[in-house]
Amino acid sequence: MCYNRYMRLFCSGAESRYHYRGKEMYVEEGKSIMRVETITLNETRNVTLTAYIQETGGEFRYVTKRPAVLVLPGGGYEYCSEREADPVALPYLKAGYQAFILRYSVKADAVWPNPLSDYEQAMEMIRGKAEEWKLYPDKIAVIGFSAGGHLAAAAATMAKNRPNAAILGYAVAGNDVKCCNQSAPDTIPEVDKDTCPCFLFATRTDNVVPIMNSIGFMEALAKADISFESHIYSYGPHGFSTGDPSIQPKDTQMSERVPHWVEDSIGWLKEVFGEFGADGLTEPAYKAHVTDDCEAFLSVDCTMARIMGNPEGARIVGEVFAEIQRKTGADRMGDAMQDFLRKMKLRDVLGFGEAPEEYVCALNEQLSKVPNI
Amino acid sequence: MCYNRYMRLFCSGAESRYHYRGKEMYVEEGKSIMRVETITLNETRNVTLTAYIQETGGEFRYVTKRPAVLVLPGGGYEYCSEREADPVALPYLKAGYQAFILRYSVKADAVWPNPLSDYEQAMEMIRGKAEEWKLYPDKIAVIGFSAGGHLAAAAATMAKNRPNAAILGYAVAGNDVKCCNQSAPDTIPEVDKDTCPCFLFATRTDNVVPIMNSIGFMEALAKADISFESHIYSYGPHGFSTGDPSIQPKDTQMSERVPHWVEDSIGWLKEVFGEFGADGLTEPAYKAHVTDDCEAFLSVDCTMARIMGNPEGARIVGEVFAEIQRKTGADRMGDAMQDFLRKMKLRDVLGFGEAPEEYVCALNEQLSKVPNI
Amino acid sequence: MCYNRYMRLFCSGAESRYHYRGKEMYVEEGKSIMRVETITLNETRNVTLTAYIQETGGEFRYVTKRPAVLVLPGGGYEYCSEREADPVALPYLKAGYQAFILRYSVKADAVWPNPLSDYEQAMEMIRGKAEEWKLYPDKIAVIGFSAGGHLAAAAATMAKNRPNAAILGYAVAGNDVKCCNQSAPDTIPEVDKDTCPCFLFATRTDNVVPIMNSIGFMEALAKADISFESHIYSYGPHGFSTGDPSIQPKDTQMSERVPHWVEDSIGWLKEVFGEFGADGLTEPAYKAHVTDDCEAFLSVDCTMARIMGNPEGARIVGEVFAEIQRKTGADRMGDAMQDFLRKMKLRDVLGFGEAPEEYVCALNEQLSKVPNI
Amino acid sequence: MCYNRYMRLFCSGAESRYHYRGKEMYVEEGKSIMRVETITLNETRNVTLTAYIQETGGEFRYVTKRPAVLVLPGGGYEYCSEREADPVALPYLKAGYQAFILRYSVKADAVWPNPLSDYEQAMEMIRGKAEEWKLYPDKIAVIGFSAGGHLAAAAATMAKNRPNAAILGYAVAGNDVKCCNQSAPDTIPEVDKDTCPCFLFATRTDNVVPIMNSIGFMEALAKADISFESHIYSYGPHGFSTGDPSIQPKDTQMSERVPHWVEDSIGWLKEVFGEFGADGLTEPAYKAHVTDDCEAFLSVDCTMARIMGNPEGARIVGEVFAEIQRKTGADRMGDAMQDFLRKMKLRDVLGFGEAPEEYVCALNEQLSKVPNI
Repeated sequence: MCYNRYMRLFCSGAESRYHYRGKEMYVEEGKSIMRVETITLNETRNVTLTAYIQETGGEFRYVTKRPAVLVLPGGGYEYCSEREADPVALPYLKAGYQAFILRYSVKADAVWPNPLSDYEQAMEMIRGKAEEWKLYPDKIAVIGFSAGGHLAAAAATMAKNRPNAAILGYAVAGNDVKCCNQSAPDTIPEVDKDTCPCFLFATRTDNVVPIMNSIGFMEALAKADISFESHIYSYGPHGFSTGDPSIQPKDTQMSERVPHWVEDSIGWLKEVFGEFGADGLTEPAYKAHVTDDCEAFLSVDCTMARIMGNPEGARIVGEVFAEIQRKTGADRMGDAMQDFLRKMKLRDVLGFGEAPEEYVCALNEQLSKVPNI
Repeated sequence: MCYNRYMRLFCSGAESRYHYRGKEMYVEEGKSIMRVETITLNETRNVTLTAYIQETGGEFRYVTKRPAVLVLPGGGYEYCSEREADPVALPYLKAGYQAFILRYSVKADAVWPNPLSDYEQAMEMIRGKAEEWKLYPDKIAVIGFSAGGHLAAAAATMAKNRPNAAILGYAVAGNDVKCCNQSAPDTIPEVDKDTCPCFLFATRTDNVVPIMNSIGFMEALAKADISFESHIYSYGPHGFSTGDPSIQPKDTQMSERVPHWVEDSIGWLKEVFGEFGADGLTEPAYKAHVTDDCEAFLSVDCTMARIMGNPEGARIVGEVFAEIQRKTGADRMGDAMQDFLRKMKLRDVLGFGEAPEEYVCALNEQLSKVPNI
Repeated sequence: MCYNRYMRLFCSGAESRYHYRGKEMYVEEGKSIMRVETITLNETRNVTLTAYIQETGGEFRYVTKRPAVLVLPGGGYEYCSEREADPVALPYLKAGYQAFILRYSVKADAVWPNPLSDYEQAMEMIRGKAEEWKLYPDKIAVIGFSAGGHLAAAAATMAKNRPNAAILGYAVAGNDVKCCNQSAPDTIPEVDKDTCPCFLFATRTDNVVPIMNSIGFMEALAKADISFESHIYSYGPHGFSTGDPSIQPKDTQMSERVPHWVEDSIGWLKEVFGEFGADGLTEPAYKAHVTDDCEAFLSVDCTMARIMGNPEGARIVGEVFAEIQRKTGADRMGDAMQDFLRKMKLRDVLGFGEAPEEYVCALNEQLSKVPNI
Repeated sequence: MCYNRYMRLFCSGAESRYHYRGKEMYVEEGKSIMRVETITLNETRNVTLTAYIQETGGEFRYVTKRPAVLVLPGGGYEYCSEREADPVALPYLKAGYQAFILRYSVKADAVWPNPLSDYEQAMEMIRGKAEEWKLYPDKIAVIGFSAGGHLAAAAATMAKNRPNAAILGYAVAGNDVKCCNQSAPDTIPEVDKDTCPCFLFATRTDNVVPIMNSIGFMEALAKADISFESHIYSYGPHGFSTGDPSIQPKDTQMSERVPHWVEDSIGWLKEVFGEFGADGLTEPAYKAHVTDDCEAFLSVDCTMARIMGNPEGARIVGEVFAEIQRKTGADRMGDAMQDFLRKMKLRDVLGFGEAPEEYVCALNEQLSKVPNI
């Protein structure tokens, strides 16, 4: 009956059988309730992975795969806090992600590298089941809190199976790692060129994990040219999780901005992983590294210092730079200024010199053949 | 060991056994994964209720019970859209609510009153299991979309088991109900004094459910003195659900403000039901009715018209009003002004006349003995 | 010195003299403090126009002209409230707009059409001085509150010099106009096809201007196919202006969402007027009318009812529609369904029928030659 | 006439003459247009202070005085950017603040301490005219950008007339100060116990002022126990000011969250200065220092390390601590744990030990008599 056909189309734009871009598609009705599955990864150590899997295709016709988050709750390596488990998975599920919660080794079992091994096992399983679980194996963020934040940072800096982004909430780092787990390594010295983009948040007045833990890790990221975002709120307790009043009751002394980290982290992931569009995820907005100083070959996105420190790079750029110096009278440039320029990317220096785009491209082409040694 | 004890306390503020306000409480660890349960309410008509149940107590120490939402997806009474099922439940779960999804009678089974009976059965079950499902039986909101919005409005206006609040998304109302389900009644004439507070949202350019559907229902609420909130966004398609890009892909022609309804409805529910505090939910911010014109006895929150239309009310207020008239020279007051005052609550008229609070209270006391006939 | 040149470029991207897209531009430094000018429009009636003018060009290199707002404060036609003057202009100034405040005829001088004449005079002056005041003469929004909201709606519906958009805050409309100004006309019957897009906001519990004032106006806009957005907040007093605590002190009984109207109205204006881009304002996101039923010629954006009511339109679309009917079995379509379809735009009907884009364009081409009579 | 009286009261809650809390108040109508005044502070160096002064009292009946911001635009000490002048003042004006813009010494005149002297002169004038300009002399925030951010930080750390809060946007600090102004001192080593609370923001990819400038300053604040908030956005250019598209045009490569700093800084100031209430500003939410380690006398808000390092403090707390050790078996506490506890405030240690409030108060009383030497 026409009536049916129209109403199916009209109301929410779906019907059991329809053509989408020339392909016949079929919706099995009422079958797309979110699946919740708990898998025991290690019986002895009581390690489990809980999966929240949402449907793709059907009425979610534009969604063929989903990015994912793997949640690592806090709890001082003594337990896995429920406050930082389900309530954290929910907003990412709403944003269209698949979500996983790892309850890793705690107490006596927390001896290193057990927790990291649990993570490796979980990440391997998630990537291995990417088809079944309908997710992008290269768009998986890890999100950890407190001790779980330490584990997330360890995953981002030391794991064999690195995550593609890391969200670190009041994460333990630096000397305080020992207070929390005597066998666990500090993550700050481990930040390397393969560390994924990171999103940090914490409260300034955290009375359990001092704010220097976050600042120290941030500094390591800055020095390694890793892309990051960081929000330190002026006021609030440790362990606030999402900051929802069902977790931190109304009248908790906490800055009103604290709960913003949740939506902000989703907006940030959108930039790192891309956004749901009519043809799958769109292109990411930026790279994991702020400069190309860690890449295998040179480019205009390397810093002046990096390029000038490479004999072949120095030769190529020499003429360009000489030209800029002539143009800008740089022979009179002081040492402070030179230092300043050395930290900038060649692309930016050229931009300020109003070099035409074609010129920048040609130069980039040349540099891209020079090994970055 | 001190270390354990401290870390348990420090990290996320929990431990297996602790004293809270003099009562010994116990956390059974790792047992608070959200439960998902699907109950068949009517096998013949394929009606199911899916429950998402979150833990209380334990680490959620301030939460003893939770408010709840019952989601009614749209689909023109032809099917129950998955786009308006799980993705809608998720943000309320994050906000600390229990969430339920009713897949009600559709197609041939949608003949009235089947869908409403399904609702009644679901609401009875939810209230009946309030203890088991750890929810406040008098803090349950219904949330419906499109045809499901019609059903939600029917629940709010005609059901035996009324909800405590209703969220209506691009809900079908008025003459268009017949286009959607020929046997279903219009809800606009059914708005009555027992209708719960309502939150409406829609897009102005909805090409399936014309915006007059929402305006008509809103007008009925205004005339019945029911409290409501309404957001009509200038631009967007029908059936956008939460408006997340995983449902409406990026580049959908839709006002950026559309997805705000989700957080706004949660803020609104907080006012209607109260907010999570250290001692359970706080007091609601306001009543379901804007005036007391529908209450059993008079009060200073009745309109002047209502009070002056009641002989005993008119007598009591007569002297007061005469005084105000003397004070303000109201003998020279025009008809327009009188009309204006008649629509106001006595409390507001007294307020403008700067009547002292004690005076208002005393007068209220007197009026509270007068039956509102 | 290079140092200077670099620092000028580096810090805030500006220098006194620079080339932008091949044109030499010059910044006269320290000369771009916002100008505030008050012009007496009518000495007898004490009518003034205050202009807040921001610079263009120079460091604001991408901005050559600005859109504008004209603020009409409330005050019951008895005075012009300062609460709804400067505090309202400020956020639009921040958003890059020029802002004007009209203090129109009040008290005895408010006899109609004096206030509207004041508005006409102000709008003529603003458009006349568009060059001097660096604004787009066709991107001027009027924003009025309470009685000023009545005046803004009169401007939008009855003026010779119509605004290009109107923002109406708890605006007086309907019978209550007489309570406020006995000589003033109701605006609801005046809504016509030339009415500009409107943005309405109010609180449900307004105890001075009943919410039906806003609902009545909204209904008239809906019936005239004018684009609008509307936000009715559940709780709050009359006259809250921007809702900032410096105007409505903390602990005012007011929904937390009330102050959102300010940013929401700026987002809405962005859709109506376009957004600041690198080449001036971008294209608006949508038209002032939701359908083309009011346009001079037919199009696929007319409703089915309009097209089928036009003999030539009916002929053209006849074959198409017959085809759709054949495809969908519409011969069995009930009356309710027909009613439903008649309200839809032809474009949407074709879309549901999955007509290819070229086909829709060709049809539109044909219809665009048929006068809409 | 009653009509007038009512309308005056009803619409926007104001009238020319009214009683408020027993005091007769009077509104001089139409006299409260924001005043803009530019004062030359130093003719030779072309230093000016522009004041934007809003009315108090009258219709702003709850506002008797206002907090204030003093804006220091950037421009590499070569000029004062207009992009970071008026557009920055506007949102604080909207929030109810008085706003000032200092155009300080630049170019050759920027030799130190000229810019700081300009600041001192401005702040002295603002505090001196607190009555005339209707502001709280102890609630004045300085807000600076880039080089102006360096000056703001210098004001916060080195000035005779310190501000009460500082907002630092992509502020130059550390070695890069020399690139910007060779005579200017670095501010990082100057952070001291009298430094006011600070709010920092920047973009990670700033290609002019490297992000380490902000991280370095933040670290100094953390070490000095000064309260701060910090937002580092992942992506964006230097010099974005408010991030409004009229300043950074649409399609600038910039994280969507960047413009949030404006509202966030207003929310933060509300916590530092208090919020507009019915009786003037409410109490601030927190202190400028995170611990009392810098105060003249000990308290329970000193760290354990500080108290235990003071002989009298150690004696008083000794017994308490011994008790806690007994209770928690702390004799088995490892060195890591001890380090951990030493960084905590006594109040927090007691809190974890579930010490009753009276007990904490009594102990605080005792400690408050011990000089912090």
